[in-house]
Amino acid sequence: MEKKLIENVRQSVPLVHNITNYVTVNDVANILLACGGSPIMADDAEEAEEITSICGGLNINIGTLNARTIESMLLAGKRANELGHIIVLDPVGAGASRLRTETAMQLLEKVRFSVIRGNVSELKTLWGGSGSTKGVDADLADRVTEGNLDEMVEFAKKLSKKTGAVIAMTGAIDIVTDESKAYAIRNGNPLMSKITGTGCMLSGVVAAYCVANPDHLLDATAAAVAAMGLSGEIAFERLEKTALGGTSSYRTYIIDAMSNMSDEILKEGMKLEAR
Amino acid sequence: MEKKLIENVRQSVPLVHNITNYVTVNDVANILLACGGSPIMADDAEEAEEITSICGGLNINIGTLNARTIESMLLAGKRANELGHIIVLDPVGAGASRLRTETAMQLLEKVRFSVIRGNVSELKTLWGGSGSTKGVDADLADRVTEGNLDEMVEFAKKLSKKTGAVIAMTGAIDIVTDESKAYAIRNGNPLMSKITGTGCMLSGVVAAYCVANPDHLLDATAAAVAAMGLSGEIAFERLEKTALGGTSSYRTYIIDAMSNMSDEILKEGMKLEAR
Amino acid sequence: MEKKLIENVRQSVPLVHNITNYVTVNDVANILLACGGSPIMADDAEEAEEITSICGGLNINIGTLNARTIESMLLAGKRANELGHIIVLDPVGAGASRLRTETAMQLLEKVRFSVIRGNVSELKTLWGGSGSTKGVDADLADRVTEGNLDEMVEFAKKLSKKTGAVIAMTGAIDIVTDESKAYAIRNGNPLMSKITGTGCMLSGVVAAYCVANPDHLLDATAAAVAAMGLSGEIAFERLEKTALGGTSSYRTYIIDAMSNMSDEILKEGMKLEAR
Repeated sequence: MEKKLIENVRQSVPLVHNITNYVTVNDVANILLACGGSPIMADDAEEAEEITSICGGLNINIGTLNARTIESMLLAGKRANELGHIIVLDPVGAGASRLRTETAMQLLEKVRFSVIRGNVSELKTLWGGSGSTKGVDADLADRVTEGNLDEMVEFAKKLSKKTGAVIAMTGAIDIVTDESKAYAIRNGNPLMSKITGTGCMLSGVVAAYCVANPDHLLDATAAAVAAMGLSGEIAFERLEKTALGGTSSYRTYIIDAMSNMSDEILKEGMKLEAR
Repeated sequence: MEKKLIENVRQSVPLVHNITNYVTVNDVANILLACGGSPIMADDAEEAEEITSICGGLNINIGTLNARTIESMLLAGKRANELGHIIVLDPVGAGASRLRTETAMQLLEKVRFSVIRGNVSELKTLWGGSGSTKGVDADLADRVTEGNLDEMVEFAKKLSKKTGAVIAMTGAIDIVTDESKAYAIRNGNPLMSKITGTGCMLSGVVAAYCVANPDHLLDATAAAVAAMGLSGEIAFERLEKTALGGTSSYRTYIIDAMSNMSDEILKEGMKLEAR
Repeated sequence: MEKKLIENVRQSVPLVHNITNYVTVNDVANILLACGGSPIMADDAEEAEEITSICGGLNINIGTLNARTIESMLLAGKRANELGHIIVLDPVGAGASRLRTETAMQLLEKVRFSVIRGNVSELKTLWGGSGSTKGVDADLADRVTEGNLDEMVEFAKKLSKKTGAVIAMTGAIDIVTDESKAYAIRNGNPLMSKITGTGCMLSGVVAAYCVANPDHLLDATAAAVAAMGLSGEIAFERLEKTALGGTSSYRTYIIDAMSNMSDEILKEGMKLEAR
């Protein structure tokens, strides 16, 4: 893995255009700043193309869709493709409703994504499988385990081949892969599932890392996934020392940890295995 | 009161569909996770019915209304009624504008709610009274006091009879009642009024507690109200030990306290009186 | 400067109607409460005029515009003008897209603002200059420095004369001015640029301070700007004592500091120079 991925982010301060849900948008903006990037949120068709033009990357998150924002996603995606920008797709809840599934499929058809980040059930939905999404959490029967890791890596590689995007399949074990080379990442903490937006935040960080490291998308994505998981670990250690601490402190501590993240800290704490 | 209300929440992880305002939506999602539930936010008519179908409960909050979301509220409410789901109404700011008052009345007419949670002036507006709402806070002349408690309980019981819903009237003293049985709850701290969203958060918690305890709606609602107030007390004690702490730390501490809440802690700290 | 500006806020609890972006809306609501005010958010044309009528001030922020909210801004602005209310404009990202620039210009044409708060590039855009906005941050070439301070003060005074509004030009050095009298304010900390929403939050505080001190708009605006910067300083000192603290703790600490702000603390810490 490249040695200065994070330094590259902090030095270039990549500007990322986010069309994202209104639930976690503030966390996404703050973690983008924390990781070294700079966020712009703009979701209206009247300005989506212009705003994306002045950015280096585009982060599309389908968390709280409506007709107005879908149009903006398509316009911004098309323009970002023309400009050769990094584009990340976070297919939140794909499989949970026809609107989400169809929008995700339409985006995949009309926009070439650099990276797609989702949980197993969301990514299965993108593949065209039945996709049983329980809310925005990975379906219990569909989570990556040590036992099915090889199978999951194969699936993610196939999805990468089909879409042309680096795939980040996140869960208890994370898989980051392109068509040929895969990483399994074992950072993170189960408590991360008890705060909203860790997935959305990660997608923002992936965008920033990739914009700053355009020739190393696989490594940049893996670094972002590991950095987020490691932030969850560092935050958990800190939480355990906090009298009366709980999930909201934990959210704060995760973003704090990301704001202190460096190539050295990541190298030290990253649990990354080539598969 | 049932002894394992909260344990039931933590074990069943009730999925709650929220159509809510964009001001406090992140807090609502995080406190739903903190209290043991799982949130989904979706406010477009294209998916409102489908999303609510996969959930156990629906939480409708009229904080930042527009024509698009009103339609979704009606569609989701109707579908949730068909499925026998728990539905909570938070009539934020009813009385403050014609749009809010009329939407609240329309919702009451077309949807059967399990629980309605609001402050005195909002609930008076629902009753059809003139309703003078100063923003989203209880009007000063309209707050529950020890002096008018009996009168307020009577009003809340009448509103329960009229709507068929458990009524949670929150303020310095909270009243939770159905047609016949009422509780006065004296948990909470005045500083809770200095952060936005404690009411919205509580409505989310009420939904989760009721979904997990469908045969005990009155007790589940009272437990949620007491748990929120007690979280405010625990958070306040913690805040007093925090050098330079203020209202934003207090918000964090409240959600933290809710994430640590258990039947034991609640039983110990609950100040609940049958009226 | 008036001696009881902040006490006036805490005693009168000014109600401020905010039509603002969905990225930082929760922070704006919480800092309005923290500084002593009371927030209402409502952005639909169906209720914008009614809601603004029951408030003392209106805060318009163009951070995430769309056709629906632009109409509401114009309706609320016109109504607030009729009622003689305080109106603050935060032209977030003016210059970054045609939509934002044109909306800002249209608002300036149709609404008389009491205060306009923005960074240098946003304010240059309002003037009709070319305006190069890098996202929502002040363009590097366009920031206020000790070297160009006189020139910047002159520009801000001209913009004040043109618009009739008090101008708050914020950056490393802040300038607050009307047509004739200017202050340079040197409070703040560079880390404030690493969290989203400090500008949006400040605009909310400006609105509250001005509503509570309607005869001293220049001083009230300067006090708000200094109070925000001072909160950033107090928060930074606290952060330095926080093991593993980072940008998210910093955000919490800033709002905490604002919730503890008083005329005495401000007088002690304010770095204000008449120019």
